[in-house]
Amino acid sequence: MQNHSKLYDVGVIGLGVMGKNLSLNIADNRYRVAAFDLDTDKIEGLVQQERTERDRSQQIDFELRVNGCSNLSEMLSILEKPRVLILSVPAGSPVDGVCNALIEAGIDHDDIVIDTGNSLWTDTVEREARYASQFTFFSCAVSGGEMGARFGPSLMPSGDIKAWGRIKPIWEAIAAKVDPETGLPIERQEPGNPVTEGEPCTTYIGPVGSGHYVKMVHNGIEYADMQLICEAYQLLSDGFGMSASEVGSLFERWSQGSLNSYLMEISAEVLKQADPISGKPLVEMILDRAGQKGTGLWTAVSSLQIGCPAPTIAEAVYARAVSTQKEQRQILSQLLSGPDANKPTDEEREAFIAQLENALYCAKIACYAQGFQLMAMTAKERRWDLDFAEIAKIWRAGCIIRATFLQSITLAYQTAASNGTELENLLMAESFSRALSSKQLDWRKTVSTSVLRGIPVPCISSALAYYDSYRCDILPANLLQGQRDYFGAHTFERTDAPAGEKYHLNWSDTAREINRV
Amino acid sequence: MQNHSKLYDVGVIGLGVMGKNLSLNIADNRYRVAAFDLDTDKIEGLVQQERTERDRSQQIDFELRVNGCSNLSEMLSILEKPRVLILSVPAGSPVDGVCNALIEAGIDHDDIVIDTGNSLWTDTVEREARYASQFTFFSCAVSGGEMGARFGPSLMPSGDIKAWGRIKPIWEAIAAKVDPETGLPIERQEPGNPVTEGEPCTTYIGPVGSGHYVKMVHNGIEYADMQLICEAYQLLSDGFGMSASEVGSLFERWSQGSLNSYLMEISAEVLKQADPISGKPLVEMILDRAGQKGTGLWTAVSSLQIGCPAPTIAEAVYARAVSTQKEQRQILSQLLSGPDANKPTDEEREAFIAQLENALYCAKIACYAQGFQLMAMTAKERRWDLDFAEIAKIWRAGCIIRATFLQSITLAYQTAASNGTELENLLMAESFSRALSSKQLDWRKTVSTSVLRGIPVPCISSALAYYDSYRCDILPANLLQGQRDYFGAHTFERTDAPAGEKYHLNWSDTAREINRV
Repeated sequence: MQNHSKLYDVGVIGLGVMGKNLSLNIADNRYRVAAFDLDTDKIEGLVQQERTERDRSQQIDFELRVNGCSNLSEMLSILEKPRVLILSVPAGSPVDGVCNALIEAGIDHDDIVIDTGNSLWTDTVEREARYASQFTFFSCAVSGGEMGARFGPSLMPSGDIKAWGRIKPIWEAIAAKVDPETGLPIERQEPGNPVTEGEPCTTYIGPVGSGHYVKMVHNGIEYADMQLICEAYQLLSDGFGMSASEVGSLFERWSQGSLNSYLMEISAEVLKQADPISGKPLVEMILDRAGQKGTGLWTAVSSLQIGCPAPTIAEAVYARAVSTQKEQRQILSQLLSGPDANKPTDEEREAFIAQLENALYCAKIACYAQGFQLMAMTAKERRWDLDFAEIAKIWRAGCIIRATFLQSITLAYQTAASNGTELENLLMAESFSRALSSKQLDWRKTVSTSVLRGIPVPCISSALAYYDSYRCDILPANLLQGQRDYFGAHTFERTDAPAGEKYHLNWSDTAREINRV
Repeated sequence: MQNHSKLYDVGVIGLGVMGKNLSLNIADNRYRVAAFDLDTDKIEGLVQQERTERDRSQQIDFELRVNGCSNLSEMLSILEKPRVLILSVPAGSPVDGVCNALIEAGIDHDDIVIDTGNSLWTDTVEREARYASQFTFFSCAVSGGEMGARFGPSLMPSGDIKAWGRIKPIWEAIAAKVDPETGLPIERQEPGNPVTEGEPCTTYIGPVGSGHYVKMVHNGIEYADMQLICEAYQLLSDGFGMSASEVGSLFERWSQGSLNSYLMEISAEVLKQADPISGKPLVEMILDRAGQKGTGLWTAVSSLQIGCPAPTIAEAVYARAVSTQKEQRQILSQLLSGPDANKPTDEEREAFIAQLENALYCAKIACYAQGFQLMAMTAKERRWDLDFAEIAKIWRAGCIIRATFLQSITLAYQTAASNGTELENLLMAESFSRALSSKQLDWRKTVSTSVLRGIPVPCISSALAYYDSYRCDILPANLLQGQRDYFGAHTFERTDAPAGEKYHLNWSDTAREINRV
């Protein structure tokens, strides 16, 4: 260790929640970290926290491995070459700000700068090209929030493959780990005692930008998954009179079964949490205005632009938008009528709970199908060779949408691959189509009950419409093409003619002749 | 007329379906047109058609007013100054191609170039700035398709207000007209005999780009409206066993009532149309893959970016996307199960038809509410002073979404204005909230029946979820903010604290303290 005397392994720039925790995680894994932030309090905070954690864990004999730097030149001067620099700054112009500062500070051509923020993937593609003559711009999306960054996130690296070789050992060390036997996360949140066994939740995704794209879609799925759980909560509370803590207990039970997921678990915890101030259920004291940071809407925008149906993800983004319009809702709640729903009996409630569990499972499959299809369509367009079995694998731990469910997705892709076929849509996987077919009736009953009781279920119902649309050999788009030909001479194809042959009916003429155009 | 000897009033560049018909419309209104296209056959075709139409309408004494030009320099040389040049070329680079060619041909600084294509509004904003030193770039979106262009479109001009003064008389002449008493279109499709009475469907929208933005949203609403009608068709045919022509007759009846619209009328015509080749209903011979040209998805993208809930418009775009994936649907239709729905009785069908009529009306209000709210939010951000009563007015005739319904929207905005209030959401207008409240039960029953019968109704159900979401004083976004605070320390506001105060619960600590941050 003393061989490379005072040299450090990685530099971390930006010591907000994520940067600080990534630094501590890296140090836990015996790499030496040079850390910098414009805010010197943050540098001091990090150095102090490492010391406290070492003391607390009684590893006082351990060396301290985090060094605060007073500027970027100093950081560059103490790093092992080629340097590995981790950026943890807000997406957008701050990323370029740091890149330019690094150029000024004398970064070398061989050095690697890894953007770990929530950058828009197209910005990442542009940045690689922009900085190519000065250094290697590499992107690695990070999922798992605060705790993930500290004790094991899911990491989605993309960019120059040679740079990946340099980064890989560090990444595999700090990533979340999965028990290869069970597919379950190995969780141990102890400073100084990182998880070193199991399969690391990181894999090389592809060319620069692809990692951030995949993470963006991950977040889109996350938006939908969160909204599904919220819809279930509203149905059970407003529709069936259950208290927050009753719903919390139910979610706790569900998270032991097929609906197991980190989001379901923490939702149970949130719902059971009492407000330290008022003593009431905390959830009822939280204002119902949802924030967002952009990745969900980027996913929806991307799906629209590429022509991939991802309606449930878009509905989840819109649900947040409606939530922010609290004043409009307050006015409209007085103006607009709903149904006169009778008070449900205990039996009705029990029956509904059983239906809802199945409905959520089905809707969840539909959301993941949308996300994976979107990645597949974009990969095709961008010529990325994405490995979806691997992507599902690295989402099994560390990230926000982690769930045993991901194991089934990996299996579905592996099965398809071993049969030499490509899984164009997750709904085509036998395991999922069978599950959907057996549960779809409960899904329908859930939506029916919800609309008749006046509870909004934009995502549960949109997912069902998605499912039912794909069940249709023939959709009414034939009428739509007729309308388009009528008003705009947009032409149509015929069912009895080869694909690509265009026809137009002369609608404005009384003879109404049909012509191939 | 002979005063300006050989000078022409307007130049039209691009003689596709729209450019040709606009030229004939302008000539009908006694303006002299200089016409150009790179394809000389198209020039000849236009000149020929004008001659034929004059002969056919026995107006042989009328002068011919269209002159084909062999190049842009010739066109510039015969136009009255400052010149008015109408571009009717495909959106995108062709617009810049023509602009640059005009600069080369010697366009003057005072001249006005009007882009009438389906350009992306942000491109339009950029173009005005880019060409400002060479000429006035003006934008005018045109709706109404082929026949609208020929006999009266709805025109949405935006840009330099001085240029509008020059264009206005021509625009008011060629626009569709509405009977001010009834609010109904004055329709007369006779070459050489244009409609000169009534209120013209054109009004100055605002600064450059705003007209194209408004037209884009118009098209987004159009997408949703078309999809709603298609969903009704599938419900009635697949769900209730009605033939295409039976549905066509029903739509014809509906278009006499509150569902009156051009789209409903032409849908009835399309459904009743026999295929000239096979003799079967034409709609059943049309391939169910819907095309699109981008304006619908731009609307959805804009709504996501600005945070305006427009889920029903997005669902309509996604419905087209699903329709194009015919092969996937064919496979999945074999794999995925639906409900075992019993054959409906005649009574059930009659009851359903009545419910569906109300459901469509409600869903339609929701779509328009989304579109108008989107325009309002964007106008606020861009500081456009849009007059929504006027916008609804100029959509009463000429355009694809024309319907008596637009008159109600104009009235709603006028009523709000006369009460000194701003109509933030159409659902707040008394006329609409009353109609929705009285019909909402049928809307619910329609969605319930659809999902239980396995027919996809993405737009009808999404619109209902939109309605029900706005009815909620409290949405489950409180749980969502709790989730976000749990995994990402994103903080939340409290219902018992001033807006803007952020709180965070220390979820990872056993003490779980709450702190204001």
